Amino acid sequence: MPDASTANLAINAERLWSNIMTTAAFGGTLKGGVRRLTLSEEDRRVRDWLVARAQASGYEVGIDRIGNIYIQRPGRDPGRAAVAMGSHLDTQPTGGKFDGILGVLAGLEVLETLDEAGIATEAPLCLVNWTNEEGARFAPGELGSEVYVGHVALEAALACRDAEGVTVGEALSAIGYAGTEVPGARRFAAMVELHIEQGPLLEAENLTIGVVTAAKGQQWYNGMVSGRESHAGTTPMTLRRDALMAFAELALAAERIARAHAPDGVGTIGMAEVSPGSRNTVPGEVRFSLEFRHPDPDHFGRMRAEMRAEAERIAAARDVTVTLDPIWSMEPLSFSPDVAATIAQAAAARGLPYREMTSGAGHDACAVASAVPTAMIFVPCKDGISHNEAESATLKDCAAGANVLLHSVLALAGVSHHD
Amino acid sequence: MPDASTANLAINAERLWSNIMTTAAFGGTLKGGVRRLTLSEEDRRVRDWLVARAQASGYEVGIDRIGNIYIQRPGRDPGRAAVAMGSHLDTQPTGGKFDGILGVLAGLEVLETLDEAGIATEAPLCLVNWTNEEGARFAPGELGSEVYVGHVALEAALACRDAEGVTVGEALSAIGYAGTEVPGARRFAAMVELHIEQGPLLEAENLTIGVVTAAKGQQWYNGMVSGRESHAGTTPMTLRRDALMAFAELALAAERIARAHAPDGVGTIGMAEVSPGSRNTVPGEVRFSLEFRHPDPDHFGRMRAEMRAEAERIAAARDVTVTLDPIWSMEPLSFSPDVAATIAQAAAARGLPYREMTSGAGHDACAVASAVPTAMIFVPCKDGISHNEAESATLKDCAAGANVLLHSVLALAGVSHHD
Repeated sequence: MPDASTANLAINAERLWSNIMTTAAFGGTLKGGVRRLTLSEEDRRVRDWLVARAQASGYEVGIDRIGNIYIQRPGRDPGRAAVAMGSHLDTQPTGGKFDGILGVLAGLEVLETLDEAGIATEAPLCLVNWTNEEGARFAPGELGSEVYVGHVALEAALACRDAEGVTVGEALSAIGYAGTEVPGARRFAAMVELHIEQGPLLEAENLTIGVVTAAKGQQWYNGMVSGRESHAGTTPMTLRRDALMAFAELALAAERIARAHAPDGVGTIGMAEVSPGSRNTVPGEVRFSLEFRHPDPDHFGRMRAEMRAEAERIAAARDVTVTLDPIWSMEPLSFSPDVAATIAQAAAARGLPYREMTSGAGHDACAVASAVPTAMIFVPCKDGISHNEAESATLKDCAAGANVLLHSVLALAGVSHHD
Repeated sequence: MPDASTANLAINAERLWSNIMTTAAFGGTLKGGVRRLTLSEEDRRVRDWLVARAQASGYEVGIDRIGNIYIQRPGRDPGRAAVAMGSHLDTQPTGGKFDGILGVLAGLEVLETLDEAGIATEAPLCLVNWTNEEGARFAPGELGSEVYVGHVALEAALACRDAEGVTVGEALSAIGYAGTEVPGARRFAAMVELHIEQGPLLEAENLTIGVVTAAKGQQWYNGMVSGRESHAGTTPMTLRRDALMAFAELALAAERIARAHAPDGVGTIGMAEVSPGSRNTVPGEVRFSLEFRHPDPDHFGRMRAEMRAEAERIAAARDVTVTLDPIWSMEPLSFSPDVAATIAQAAAARGLPYREMTSGAGHDACAVASAVPTAMIFVPCKDGISHNEAESATLKDCAAGANVLLHSVLALAGVSHHD
């Protein structure tokens, strides 16, 4: 049950929006986007801003060896593990104002709102900025959260190099964020990450809140069709082994399979290169990328098996060779039903229209979920556009998400009535 | 009816083959192909070889202002227009030993065979090397033959520049082939061009001779599909406007249309570029080439109309924009039925298995046909491969083609029995 003394508590929407616009200047681009690559000078400036703000409020600030920033507000019961909030401050090379940083600034807003209202929580609250979620300067992404849960070894993470050969370790030292805390040492009771949806569903259905209960499994392939080059004018259709036409059939098969596993299945071919690439030559080879995603392990497995069967069928029917090389995969992941239920309850109590949904993209929450009960809150972004300078979200939706975050962590941490 | 005194006349197959191998050294590549770009030093060398050979036999050699070489053997009746044979000596940048030059060397072989046998023809015979059939160094191709028939103005042709800015006129002077004869001044009664098929039909049907009765019309398009870029993980299939999937449907529609206009219709997409070309982004745009060819004007028109209808249907169904920009076309062309019948008769009389067929590619004969009764002889090439260093044909087939050429021009020019 919501607590009577906090039921009407709300974050300061104007202050949240002002913080979003202020931080968008750290790496701000002419087109209204943000270029704030991990551990760059722009990243240092936004980190310094966040730390200064935290210190001004008297919160404890810890930095771990991979540069994750922990901003902790104490609870009444120091024996309880903290309830975490957070996301990331880094962006894509031509990113937007909301991806990642919304979850961090909303967490800061939660802490400051509680201070102003004089509300103490039973468990401590901890706002986290995870290092290098994007993976744009240093690969792989979700580096700080993966190191936190122990999926990636600290030494390996520190040795990752950018295109200029600079390591993560060197970059951390250069901007003053090579901390001393051991990643994973700080235990959390739960984590809630607020993020823009980066997809069009909430907007299309006129909903404000997505309660993210799962993340889609992902299977990436490098594909190739090998047929036979021949003269476009002199080779009859019946004697062709046209790699491009076989590829076209494969593409439509992938689409058909994804559609058959509706509504959550997706299948995408983002890249294709046609050889030899001459107007008058029947293509002999097409190389392409293919990926499938689905949140349900059974559907996910069937999509992959169906694609293999289609590839074999098309190869045989057209006398071409089709290879699908599985280069990376992530199994479907379920977030904590308890944390998700808490989020749904917070949305319902605020009268905010919401739906359960799955995340199609990877997030720090996906990594953290393997060690900590975790779920996510999505808010709409315009036209589903993200990883783009045109990325856009409204003050109203950002504030609604921050309020759901506030009441979710209050429920998870517990509110004291002893004051 | 075949003339008794010439019915068993045959060219010297070994000499023809030896000439093919000798001339393949002018621009010969390590992989066994030939790089002999129009009006290059290699082209000069092969031209000089041909002219020296012609002069040694006492033939008249004329060079016109576009560099076409005419090698004429006199007839008994100087009032009759010459019967022409010929093709081209230039090659693609990585071409083979047979494309073009077979038709020139077979013509030389015809002249020398008649000399050795002491046979005179009523009409003169004229072997022609047409300048720049390939269009690889200077565009467009079939330049010498198009100037001959007046489709391309001489001054415009001489002003064409290669990638280094050298004009055709400068290149002709540099290799000593800027002649003085006016292109088109030398009239022909007929022309026969022997060429490798550059396609797989004769080989597939185990035939030796193709009697080429027509050349396919060609329609070239630059195509574009514009959809909407979106996130591959978060955009449901139902909300996508995927340019690549629309392109795949267009490709298969083009294939279906070409197949429906069997056996002569062909449709090819040789080039496609996908934007933005990121593994995790639903493509927003695909640019591609498309071409259709058919020898029959009615079918040719219907193919184009059907493709337009398919493009409109797919664009509407997928909420994308499809544009098909017609950048070049050539109407279907019928060769002379009389010249084709003469070729068929020559093949039949030699017991060579033949079929009528259409040319899918452009040739000098296509240009000349607008002014002179013309047809072509095709012989098989291995796997239909051409414009490739692996281009290959057999001594037996080359000789068969040259014998059909011999007896075709004897029939067209008439044989004298007064000696």
